[in-house]
Amino acid sequence: MTTETGGLFSGLFARGPAAAATADRAVLQALLDVELALMRALVICRLAPAEAAEELGAIADASAFDLVELGCETGTQGTPVPGLLAALRARLPETARAHLHMGATSQDVLDSALMLVSYRALEPLVADLDRAAAAAAALAERHRDTLMPGRTLLQQALPVTFGLKAAGWLAILEDAGHELAQVREQTLALQFGGAVGTLAALGDHGAEVGQALAIELGLPLPPLPWHTNRLRPARLAGTLGAVLGAAAKVARDIVLLAQTEVAEVAEGGSAGRGGSSAMPHKRNPVGAIAVLACAGQAPGLVATVLGAMAQEHERGAGSWQSEWEPLLALLRLAGSAAAALAETLTGLRVDAVKMRADLELAGAAIMSESLVTALTPALGRSAAQELVRGAAAEAERSGCGLDAVLFDSEPALAALGADGVRRALEPERYLGMAQTLIDRALTRRGAP
Amino acid sequence: MTTETGGLFSGLFARGPAAAATADRAVLQALLDVELALMRALVICRLAPAEAAEELGAIADASAFDLVELGCETGTQGTPVPGLLAALRARLPETARAHLHMGATSQDVLDSALMLVSYRALEPLVADLDRAAAAAAALAERHRDTLMPGRTLLQQALPVTFGLKAAGWLAILEDAGHELAQVREQTLALQFGGAVGTLAALGDHGAEVGQALAIELGLPLPPLPWHTNRLRPARLAGTLGAVLGAAAKVARDIVLLAQTEVAEVAEGGSAGRGGSSAMPHKRNPVGAIAVLACAGQAPGLVATVLGAMAQEHERGAGSWQSEWEPLLALLRLAGSAAAALAETLTGLRVDAVKMRADLELAGAAIMSESLVTALTPALGRSAAQELVRGAAAEAERSGCGLDAVLFDSEPALAALGADGVRRALEPERYLGMAQTLIDRALTRRGAP
Amino acid sequence: MTTETGGLFSGLFARGPAAAATADRAVLQALLDVELALMRALVICRLAPAEAAEELGAIADASAFDLVELGCETGTQGTPVPGLLAALRARLPETARAHLHMGATSQDVLDSALMLVSYRALEPLVADLDRAAAAAAALAERHRDTLMPGRTLLQQALPVTFGLKAAGWLAILEDAGHELAQVREQTLALQFGGAVGTLAALGDHGAEVGQALAIELGLPLPPLPWHTNRLRPARLAGTLGAVLGAAAKVARDIVLLAQTEVAEVAEGGSAGRGGSSAMPHKRNPVGAIAVLACAGQAPGLVATVLGAMAQEHERGAGSWQSEWEPLLALLRLAGSAAAALAETLTGLRVDAVKMRADLELAGAAIMSESLVTALTPALGRSAAQELVRGAAAEAERSGCGLDAVLFDSEPALAALGADGVRRALEPERYLGMAQTLIDRALTRRGAP
Amino acid sequence: MTTETGGLFSGLFARGPAAAATADRAVLQALLDVELALMRALVICRLAPAEAAEELGAIADASAFDLVELGCETGTQGTPVPGLLAALRARLPETARAHLHMGATSQDVLDSALMLVSYRALEPLVADLDRAAAAAAALAERHRDTLMPGRTLLQQALPVTFGLKAAGWLAILEDAGHELAQVREQTLALQFGGAVGTLAALGDHGAEVGQALAIELGLPLPPLPWHTNRLRPARLAGTLGAVLGAAAKVARDIVLLAQTEVAEVAEGGSAGRGGSSAMPHKRNPVGAIAVLACAGQAPGLVATVLGAMAQEHERGAGSWQSEWEPLLALLRLAGSAAAALAETLTGLRVDAVKMRADLELAGAAIMSESLVTALTPALGRSAAQELVRGAAAEAERSGCGLDAVLFDSEPALAALGADGVRRALEPERYLGMAQTLIDRALTRRGAP
Repeated sequence: MTTETGGLFSGLFARGPAAAATADRAVLQALLDVELALMRALVICRLAPAEAAEELGAIADASAFDLVELGCETGTQGTPVPGLLAALRARLPETARAHLHMGATSQDVLDSALMLVSYRALEPLVADLDRAAAAAAALAERHRDTLMPGRTLLQQALPVTFGLKAAGWLAILEDAGHELAQVREQTLALQFGGAVGTLAALGDHGAEVGQALAIELGLPLPPLPWHTNRLRPARLAGTLGAVLGAAAKVARDIVLLAQTEVAEVAEGGSAGRGGSSAMPHKRNPVGAIAVLACAGQAPGLVATVLGAMAQEHERGAGSWQSEWEPLLALLRLAGSAAAALAETLTGLRVDAVKMRADLELAGAAIMSESLVTALTPALGRSAAQELVRGAAAEAERSGCGLDAVLFDSEPALAALGADGVRRALEPERYLGMAQTLIDRALTRRGAP
Repeated sequence: MTTETGGLFSGLFARGPAAAATADRAVLQALLDVELALMRALVICRLAPAEAAEELGAIADASAFDLVELGCETGTQGTPVPGLLAALRARLPETARAHLHMGATSQDVLDSALMLVSYRALEPLVADLDRAAAAAAALAERHRDTLMPGRTLLQQALPVTFGLKAAGWLAILEDAGHELAQVREQTLALQFGGAVGTLAALGDHGAEVGQALAIELGLPLPPLPWHTNRLRPARLAGTLGAVLGAAAKVARDIVLLAQTEVAEVAEGGSAGRGGSSAMPHKRNPVGAIAVLACAGQAPGLVATVLGAMAQEHERGAGSWQSEWEPLLALLRLAGSAAAALAETLTGLRVDAVKMRADLELAGAAIMSESLVTALTPALGRSAAQELVRGAAAEAERSGCGLDAVLFDSEPALAALGADGVRRALEPERYLGMAQTLIDRALTRRGAP
Repeated sequence: MTTETGGLFSGLFARGPAAAATADRAVLQALLDVELALMRALVICRLAPAEAAEELGAIADASAFDLVELGCETGTQGTPVPGLLAALRARLPETARAHLHMGATSQDVLDSALMLVSYRALEPLVADLDRAAAAAAALAERHRDTLMPGRTLLQQALPVTFGLKAAGWLAILEDAGHELAQVREQTLALQFGGAVGTLAALGDHGAEVGQALAIELGLPLPPLPWHTNRLRPARLAGTLGAVLGAAAKVARDIVLLAQTEVAEVAEGGSAGRGGSSAMPHKRNPVGAIAVLACAGQAPGLVATVLGAMAQEHERGAGSWQSEWEPLLALLRLAGSAAAALAETLTGLRVDAVKMRADLELAGAAIMSESLVTALTPALGRSAAQELVRGAAAEAERSGCGLDAVLFDSEPALAALGADGVRRALEPERYLGMAQTLIDRALTRRGAP
Repeated sequence: MTTETGGLFSGLFARGPAAAATADRAVLQALLDVELALMRALVICRLAPAEAAEELGAIADASAFDLVELGCETGTQGTPVPGLLAALRARLPETARAHLHMGATSQDVLDSALMLVSYRALEPLVADLDRAAAAAAALAERHRDTLMPGRTLLQQALPVTFGLKAAGWLAILEDAGHELAQVREQTLALQFGGAVGTLAALGDHGAEVGQALAIELGLPLPPLPWHTNRLRPARLAGTLGAVLGAAAKVARDIVLLAQTEVAEVAEGGSAGRGGSSAMPHKRNPVGAIAVLACAGQAPGLVATVLGAMAQEHERGAGSWQSEWEPLLALLRLAGSAAAALAETLTGLRVDAVKMRADLELAGAAIMSESLVTALTPALGRSAAQELVRGAAAEAERSGCGLDAVLFDSEPALAALGADGVRRALEPERYLGMAQTLIDRALTRRGAP
């Protein structure tokens, strides 16, 4: 459930502006904004007098309502809207009271309000993702030549550069942000259909009021109401889940690189951050851990929204209602993760010396594929693989290093010469498309 | 995220005493209770002077702390404990300050506090499940002979009684409550291991302090710390998920029985409850819908807790943290569902006349199996099935009712006589073990 | 796990051509297709002789390999690729053997193969969704004036037409199909990066070979490899989940409308389909139930794919591998659901008489909102609501029908005249935008 | 979907005897076993002649049926049972044919068969968990004094022993196995209620036949049928999910310890296992990765089973059917994970030298808490913490090691003497309850 004020875990799970935009008070304000926009639309369509909108506008301020009381009424009515309408009616003069909520059903108001909350929260969320991407881009540029081990299945495999890794972070964060921006513009939409989707209570004016309402709220008008067509919430939830997964991929790398034994990166930040009073040597990567803690909750929440799609007839009996908390939680958690990740990447400390040292940890073994590639023109691929496999085995048995074994190997020397062997053992010569890929990632970002 | 006060949806999702016991303020109080219990345990073991416990006891009141500030610190440190300790130290005299939190790690305090919150929330939760079960028992007894159609795949199948259906509700609610009570007694446990589970900071006193702490808190002392052995949270979450699923089964039946076209039950309650201003004829089953809305969120939350089990080494980096919100949400939602269901079942209005009418909706067709059973001794099962299948087809073709066809059927009359056919068509004669099963469900409840 | 042949539940869960395209044998063929396409790309780039591709082409037939043996090797190596390569090498002449798999890593081959399987399965899947949409469109057109009750929270609310309901089905199926077609064209992509994403083993030829390979396979070449950037699988899974949710919405409506007490629609099909030998009167909506049974599995599977996104460094250790089964299962289940739904909608039997009868079930009460709307011009909205609420209460108390009460009501007659009251009670006059919305849904379909 | 033969990924996801017990053919055999047991129960209760059971027994062999054909029929009827009955009837003489399936409904047979499959699969599953636990116990005993760093949030924290870590593995595996064994004995049960749970077709013989059937099948007879009371499947699924989570915790540790930079453990096994032809230095921890890949799928599958609990009236319309695949998948994946983990733990290679070296990686910093503890008696806890924090800062600034700083610190020397400082820096002296906890874990195992 969203909170009005920061809860006990808010620094982890309700961090940054996107999260704040999902608090109970913000949802209430959105409900009021929808009712007011509807009243204005009625005025525009000459179905209500202008004063009705003025009267409602004068009191449509969320801070003046009692959340506890409204929350209680939600239990009696099944949505917060009837309770809110009662509270509004109690405060409104007759004109506004008579036209309040005309033509709409509770679901119109709540669905539209949640779309509005999403629209508002996604702006800072996309911005925070972009801040994180910008920090990744800077790392990609700065460390394009910083050698480090590439790791598959958590085993060192071949050399990469830290710039390439950061370019991968850039790519996933940018792709995720782009998808989310698209959802903001294309998926969010007005809900307006009246009790069963026909807007019958507005007679011939349904289409006209809908159009005016959409303009008032700044939300697109969909061709049909979507009371029980839940592709929009599903797409929103799925994309937020993917955004959290993208952030988690970056955070996972950071947590692994920050391990005491790896220590290739560390989170920055003030003294005390991520520290431990009893263990002053610790520098916990709390930012990355916060991202993982947010993201770990996403798959289940997305599943809930997807699981609610089979809604009954013209309004769901329980399924629709089960969407509200998970959607708000996904916005809150994605916002928190984006804020934490932007901060973490911006302050990330990179230890290029340790990266290089780790690359040499396994001696020349990490260059095996490079050697095979180098030997292939002369020996053919099969023989080249055979030679290197044999040399690696010999190196492991003797303990004297793959490089030493190769400099002693007649067929290797015959094929490549000592210089050729040496070159094949240099990690900076075995980076393939790394620079091209970094450039691509950076260029894409520059592109519109 | 849990709330201190009722949020906008609290009537649906934070209803009743169990939900209240999971609010932020209650979690904070549990954190304080654990720190205080630890101090008392240190005093008992003569590792701290008695005044330290007194000093701490004097200020260990959750209402005196600022949740916003504490929540903020959670982001810096990764758990709310260091921030709380700092706030406590700022208020404590030197003696208590020097002994505060001695031997413990943040996870000890937070895990134990969440166990304490669970222990406290489960008591009213089990009680509300029992209230719901009691209401189901009353319905089972009262309606043990109230005939209604049994329905499979939402098609009428054979007659049952509403008492049998209510006995099924009783059974599932009681089984669920029993499982939850077991979890409360057997699964919840103290967490106490210090930074890496060895309690090294307590020297030789670890076991002794642990024992005293367990007694203070009223939580069992487990053989080993379970910092990264998450079977306890998994079991708790899984059982809460099953409880919500059990409540949802009952609620699903009620929502279906309350459909306008079925109208065999209706929720009671004051005027206005579940009503619609625009559609005064509606009587929405809001209690059952609330249960479904809570339960719809459970599977995803359970999945999150299970997905967090692969925790790294001696403390999880993100996975542990992702458990907190879902565990509290599950307690809150199960509490809400139990409260709503107890209320709904207690006030349920049953329309026995409509039940009987629905039973006769398909004419005698619902008695087909009964006819086969009756004809089998005389004709053999295959011929009996053949006869009834033919008669049913004839009834459908002619539109004159299966009973009419059978009273015209020579082989049927030969086998059973007109009286026998009539008896085979009486639903009250084709209820098999219904009474026995109702008795079993009621007796089980009586049993200890 | 996918099956080679139909399993015991295949009629429910592995139905139709999309499901068949995900069987083990089809995945194996896709693996072979990727290896062959790579060899051809190497030939095109002059890194392998033409005969290598010919030799490989001659044996790249999935039916010639032993799935049991390959499956076994998957356990030893962590992916099926090394085992497949070994089996290929054992059959290939030296030339092809030496160039087999050059430059690629196992994940390149398996990811690309799964994309290929998806690309192949999505074509019939989109076609089956379109068949279902076409059937819904026909129903929308044919029944645009067929009156029935609109239902919210499973209570009758206001009149709609069955054509409007079918237009809603059309809209959701078309939107879902459109989203899936987009994913097919934009999200699926080649995977090709070599061991750590640099294609180092191809020296300067990485980009060129990648381009040729993409063309060979008909899959887009992405800017960067996406070994641990899992937005593509996440988007694919999320969209399949939404497609299943969309199908389930339609199926849920059908199951509810097919209830014995509602009986407004029935599934068609041959005798025996959905029947019960013991209960010949039953006509189970097995097609819709099959859809629900498939869709019920989707949220959890999507959650798994999202939960696997935080993949380590350059290749995930367990997370990547956990994607394979759920992705294939989602394709299979979505394919099954689309096939079942197309069949169900095509054969759906609609009982317009029962729909009309159900509309009159609650007497005139369902027209309450219509009466308020009609009375508002004369009385003002508040007074109109008051009058109708009072009349409804009187009708319920006296049991003589809202229409009778109104024809006795002086203020109502004064406001509307008897004719006006009569008109306000006619459901066909209170359908608001229904025709417009049906037209919109049908027109959209006509549009490109 | 389960497979008859090993699929392409079977080495990872259908490994070991428990997985084999869930194949399609095994499910079919269980269906036949239930029908045969029912016939025998009818014979025992004198409702069928003995020859009926003999006739059925002669053909109740799964290998003689065509899975493709049966699977197809599942789509027409909604369960595989009617198709199987038709196939049986086609082969049976009249006597057996007339009594086949008497009193039962399809769900009785399928639910009971899935319980039987579970019962059969859980035996080897529990045994494999026990093999894994035994291997962990051996490691705990052998390495009870092998020092290594304890790690929290993936940062070195305080010393532990590898024996303690292995004792934690032992504890979680044993607890999980124990829970699963309990489920096998207490949760699995016969399903037998007939079409709507009343066993009406058996007249007065329902209870008696049920009892005989339960004995025949070796499954407990529950007090009521549980057609739509799904606590049993929920508990089974939840426990399997927890078992997979438990296995994943151990596997996570192994994968992390096997990282190239940590290299404290390695998986054993034959040459080639987990190797890479291009990178001969790699030793991928494929066993642990297999466990993680299985476990990653569990939370979503458990969510599906929980999400299916709200089943309608006397038989679920889609929800029940959506349980079948996930339940079988959970059994299969848990079986695979247990088999892989047992193998991995049995062959695990432990590098005690590297563990010790890693412990010294951060110099004396890892002993900070030990120093505080040692200094507290002399200085008080606050001053002790202050001193060590200052020394740690000084050590970081000067780069000369915490030990050197302390041996230069007058207050430290005054408080402890040089020997005392030295002792406080010895990791083997700061293990707290480690030995006790190892003993507890080993003793528990010995206990019945």
